Amino acid sequence: MMIIIMSPTATKENLKKVQDKILKEGLRYHLSKGELRTIVGVIGDKKIISGLQMKAFEGVEKTVQITEKYKLVSREFKPEDTIVNIGGVLVGGGNLGIMAGPCAVESMEQLLESAEAVKARGANFLRGGAFKPRTSPYDFQGLAREGLEMLKAAGEKTGLKVVTEIVDMNALDLISEYADVLQIGARNMQNFELLKAVGRSQKPVLLKRGMSATISEWLNAAEYILSEGNYNVILCERGIRTYETFTRNTLDLSAVAAVKELSHLPIIVDPSHGTGRWQMVRPMARAAIAAGADGLMIEVHPHPEIALSDGDQSLTPENFSLVMKDVQNMMQVMGRE
Amino acid sequence: MMIIIMSPTATKENLKKVQDKILKEGLRYHLSKGELRTIVGVIGDKKIISGLQMKAFEGVEKTVQITEKYKLVSREFKPEDTIVNIGGVLVGGGNLGIMAGPCAVESMEQLLESAEAVKARGANFLRGGAFKPRTSPYDFQGLAREGLEMLKAAGEKTGLKVVTEIVDMNALDLISEYADVLQIGARNMQNFELLKAVGRSQKPVLLKRGMSATISEWLNAAEYILSEGNYNVILCERGIRTYETFTRNTLDLSAVAAVKELSHLPIIVDPSHGTGRWQMVRPMARAAIAAGADGLMIEVHPHPEIALSDGDQSLTPENFSLVMKDVQNMMQVMGRE
Amino acid sequence: MMIIIMSPTATKENLKKVQDKILKEGLRYHLSKGELRTIVGVIGDKKIISGLQMKAFEGVEKTVQITEKYKLVSREFKPEDTIVNIGGVLVGGGNLGIMAGPCAVESMEQLLESAEAVKARGANFLRGGAFKPRTSPYDFQGLAREGLEMLKAAGEKTGLKVVTEIVDMNALDLISEYADVLQIGARNMQNFELLKAVGRSQKPVLLKRGMSATISEWLNAAEYILSEGNYNVILCERGIRTYETFTRNTLDLSAVAAVKELSHLPIIVDPSHGTGRWQMVRPMARAAIAAGADGLMIEVHPHPEIALSDGDQSLTPENFSLVMKDVQNMMQVMGRE
Amino acid sequence: MMIIIMSPTATKENLKKVQDKILKEGLRYHLSKGELRTIVGVIGDKKIISGLQMKAFEGVEKTVQITEKYKLVSREFKPEDTIVNIGGVLVGGGNLGIMAGPCAVESMEQLLESAEAVKARGANFLRGGAFKPRTSPYDFQGLAREGLEMLKAAGEKTGLKVVTEIVDMNALDLISEYADVLQIGARNMQNFELLKAVGRSQKPVLLKRGMSATISEWLNAAEYILSEGNYNVILCERGIRTYETFTRNTLDLSAVAAVKELSHLPIIVDPSHGTGRWQMVRPMARAAIAAGADGLMIEVHPHPEIALSDGDQSLTPENFSLVMKDVQNMMQVMGRE
Repeated sequence: MMIIIMSPTATKENLKKVQDKILKEGLRYHLSKGELRTIVGVIGDKKIISGLQMKAFEGVEKTVQITEKYKLVSREFKPEDTIVNIGGVLVGGGNLGIMAGPCAVESMEQLLESAEAVKARGANFLRGGAFKPRTSPYDFQGLAREGLEMLKAAGEKTGLKVVTEIVDMNALDLISEYADVLQIGARNMQNFELLKAVGRSQKPVLLKRGMSATISEWLNAAEYILSEGNYNVILCERGIRTYETFTRNTLDLSAVAAVKELSHLPIIVDPSHGTGRWQMVRPMARAAIAAGADGLMIEVHPHPEIALSDGDQSLTPENFSLVMKDVQNMMQVMGRE
Repeated sequence: MMIIIMSPTATKENLKKVQDKILKEGLRYHLSKGELRTIVGVIGDKKIISGLQMKAFEGVEKTVQITEKYKLVSREFKPEDTIVNIGGVLVGGGNLGIMAGPCAVESMEQLLESAEAVKARGANFLRGGAFKPRTSPYDFQGLAREGLEMLKAAGEKTGLKVVTEIVDMNALDLISEYADVLQIGARNMQNFELLKAVGRSQKPVLLKRGMSATISEWLNAAEYILSEGNYNVILCERGIRTYETFTRNTLDLSAVAAVKELSHLPIIVDPSHGTGRWQMVRPMARAAIAAGADGLMIEVHPHPEIALSDGDQSLTPENFSLVMKDVQNMMQVMGRE
Repeated sequence: MMIIIMSPTATKENLKKVQDKILKEGLRYHLSKGELRTIVGVIGDKKIISGLQMKAFEGVEKTVQITEKYKLVSREFKPEDTIVNIGGVLVGGGNLGIMAGPCAVESMEQLLESAEAVKARGANFLRGGAFKPRTSPYDFQGLAREGLEMLKAAGEKTGLKVVTEIVDMNALDLISEYADVLQIGARNMQNFELLKAVGRSQKPVLLKRGMSATISEWLNAAEYILSEGNYNVILCERGIRTYETFTRNTLDLSAVAAVKELSHLPIIVDPSHGTGRWQMVRPMARAAIAAGADGLMIEVHPHPEIALSDGDQSLTPENFSLVMKDVQNMMQVMGRE
Repeated sequence: MMIIIMSPTATKENLKKVQDKILKEGLRYHLSKGELRTIVGVIGDKKIISGLQMKAFEGVEKTVQITEKYKLVSREFKPEDTIVNIGGVLVGGGNLGIMAGPCAVESMEQLLESAEAVKARGANFLRGGAFKPRTSPYDFQGLAREGLEMLKAAGEKTGLKVVTEIVDMNALDLISEYADVLQIGARNMQNFELLKAVGRSQKPVLLKRGMSATISEWLNAAEYILSEGNYNVILCERGIRTYETFTRNTLDLSAVAAVKELSHLPIIVDPSHGTGRWQMVRPMARAAIAAGADGLMIEVHPHPEIALSDGDQSLTPENFSLVMKDVQNMMQVMGRE
């Protein structure tokens, strides 16, 4: 539904043209005449309404889209929580996905050490980047196929499911061979060709929120994946860009509550990228679970000070232990509700 | 400390002028010469350094302030948590301040009903505005002195401490007579005259974060109060302004962790203004406590649908009960750390 | 006018309560029933509508305010451009106000040198702060009354009108004695007590846009001044706070075009604070005039490298000459329209 | 160069480990010891420095990157303005590229009418989308190959060069056959695989600024293209995302001045997307040229009210005439400098 507000100076002819346009598109309308303004409520096919360009008509002051464009991801469409099943490991509907590991895969030794450390402390997913989207072309770009092989090996050895980022739709088959979950990073949240490609696959997808994406844009991005047939989508809040510079991003935990209201999809939180400071990961992980998140994505590196990427925000295995203890305590409280 | 980065094209004379200026101000410096650039580290009196205008010198590419200007509010200056004592009720260092009540005082009946409701459910402070700073001059501006009298009466009747906003330094004596805590609202966070005025008083102050204030600016605003002699300051995170429109503001819970790291002052969270949606108050209140907040400020109105201000974000007493139960559970977890 | 969108699950009783509330407030409504949602258009007294708290009613999904709350500042209320007359110097309606001078008044010598320099190059106003609102209590706070005396003397000597900032309503009489225009700074844009105080005076007011104020909030702030009887208001765009850090603020020149559409008040632009970099002042001054601004506020200091405040963004008199030549050329183009 | 600030509590061992790490990476350092803090300036290979993770070391308080990572796009690397030659039409160094046409290609008739209209009024490029990245999967996605064919035909008929967006690296060969300039849209600014792909081509590229990209990130994105060998890059400012909702985006004209300072690449401005309101296109186009832009990208549609995409911000040919007259006047002034 769309609301069209006519300006106080709109003429009858202006209004007539608006009405004609609406009928011509196969839509219907209701008029409300106020003292100063007439308001037109447009009803009919969502897709047609979303394409209307009414502000270009003379006499139109403002238009307001009332209903969201997304459908399949909405709570209205499917009231019960979606639980994504990743080879037997469930995420959503009370099941936590704890995804931990290094930012980038650097070597088999580093990866395996990380994987064993996080497994022992309660993680059920191993995260690690083989293809890294980096701001500068001169930064470390990842180990590519070699990295994927290490991830698969480490996953098999420890029993952890593997999450890794896809940045190029042509690598879909390759990555699908090695990974259990395909991660779409913040920078690619509106890379619609990539969204459609993973949508045509049946692999579970972890869709990170774009750096300055609204919740509505994020859910519309997820809709691209579902509309191609892949319903196995997990959302991941990772901080948004604001004026504040003390933290790398501003972790928007209210997005957890908002997504729970608007959508049935599970949502996890990444306090490592969300804050960019390892000291803040623990309190923010706690807060994320308290807000209702279905899991966490946390960077853990056996030796953060020699990490090739994002060492500033990586936890040592010892600090990750403290986070996991908090999470367990928190889950007891949440369960008592 | 300040770092001055000379540009690659800076001449010896450019550098000389910079050095002379530093010495002339009674400061000292260290030079680091790189291949392309020379770097000057300036050491000495914080106040003098903060006044230096070095970018106006030729050959200076960039300057970086290393140390924050605030001092009295810093954790370095006072490592242990400050506990503010409001007539026997403590806030900080593990003591929660739960401030609840209507956005605006409307009538004695409404206020007393609210006060009794929140007291019965565990609040220890009554909040309510007698002077309301409103975006439009045509919005309800508060009951003024009459509102203050009602607040005091309701506070005495229920045993709740009273928190109310001060918007005019000339009203300081008046408000101090009736209130236990003076609230500085977001719009006045950098109204320095008002900060200095409450700094000269000894009344506890609740300092809300400005709509788009950095954490550093916020702590500097608190420094204005402490530097006048009033150390009884509680900070309040109430959401910052971002591009997201689903929520009224973006509640920045990482600010809780940041303030705990940088300062000894207690910090509470206002999820009502922070989200602008009553449905989100409960999960965000839970998350705030999990993040380490020393309390909450929550709008509760016996009949939100007839509130004169901010009814959209006010809880009914029944919903406030649920929040308080969550808070108690959460505190058990936090205590177990 | 307000639009209330009922949720698809709203009952007849929910709708009935909404209708009753509207009628009880003396307002009227129109209903539009769609397939899924009913929409209620509320008509009647602006002030009452702006106080409605409809989202707190069960069954209400969303509310949209259609009309702005401000009235006296609107172009609808007064279609022709306002021209503010400051002792014979006009600003608005094609008359440019060029306000130049140092950020802070430091000494009679510095001020007079600045004043003569900017007068000789075409400025018609002298700007300079006697009371400086500074982020830190330890920064230079201005010369106060002594600074005001210098401003008045320099203004009289050069024939420039004097613009200076007011930060404390108790200083209104004092400052009014010395200054021709009262400046309200960005940090005080929503210090409503101060706005009301200058509104009760008849002195022209320069109202800077708040750091993160929307255009609507800014015009509402101006409405506070006009609604007290003072119609001599000039707006000043000075950059807004965004995520970008290369510039001190992001100068929003589209605000010039927006204000021209929405309001009859004159608007000038401050490229010095707007960019924080003296190298960018000249192109941005040019762009401001091209966008339709009624003037400029520019920091000029005879010796920026020894300025006590904001030297980084101050122009030398020589660079100010270049700006003024650009402005004159630009005005020819604009006149040719 | 990187600056490492040690915390006041850092031990000699902490410092030793930092020094060892720097040397181990083949880098060098200078120490500055202040009263409270030691500062370490790191010198050596840019790429290695940019990979350092020093905040993860104990005792490190803060790190500051002094030098930007990009190189080929920088003004330091190439002081004179780059002029991009598109089949004989030059952009940069005083040559304006005026790119006009409909948001999306809808039909041959609409396109040709647009092309002839903008050609007659002084445009030298025809813009139009054949592949449209849209927020919702249900919005019009473009005519694909058919649209490309129309663009080429319309370009040949009118003598306009063709600019069109590429959203999928696999379509590079296809689009290159039909278009003269490959446009990378805001949503793909950090789609690094796409950047590398167009970098391996020799087609001129128009790189739009990301919705919330800093100037530094934008120049680094351009560096991806240049580092693959394609130096024919034109930047395009199209508004950034801020809290302001009156305009669709906030057009950041100071980015024009900033890019001119930091880089040799030409930069044009898109006031249509930048404001989202056709009424604001004309003043903002004027301001863009005044700020120093090397051209404009403007949406022009013969009948904006029936446009399938972005009609709200499209100009009629008549209004585009007014813009072009302003541009011509403006260029005379700018030439006189």
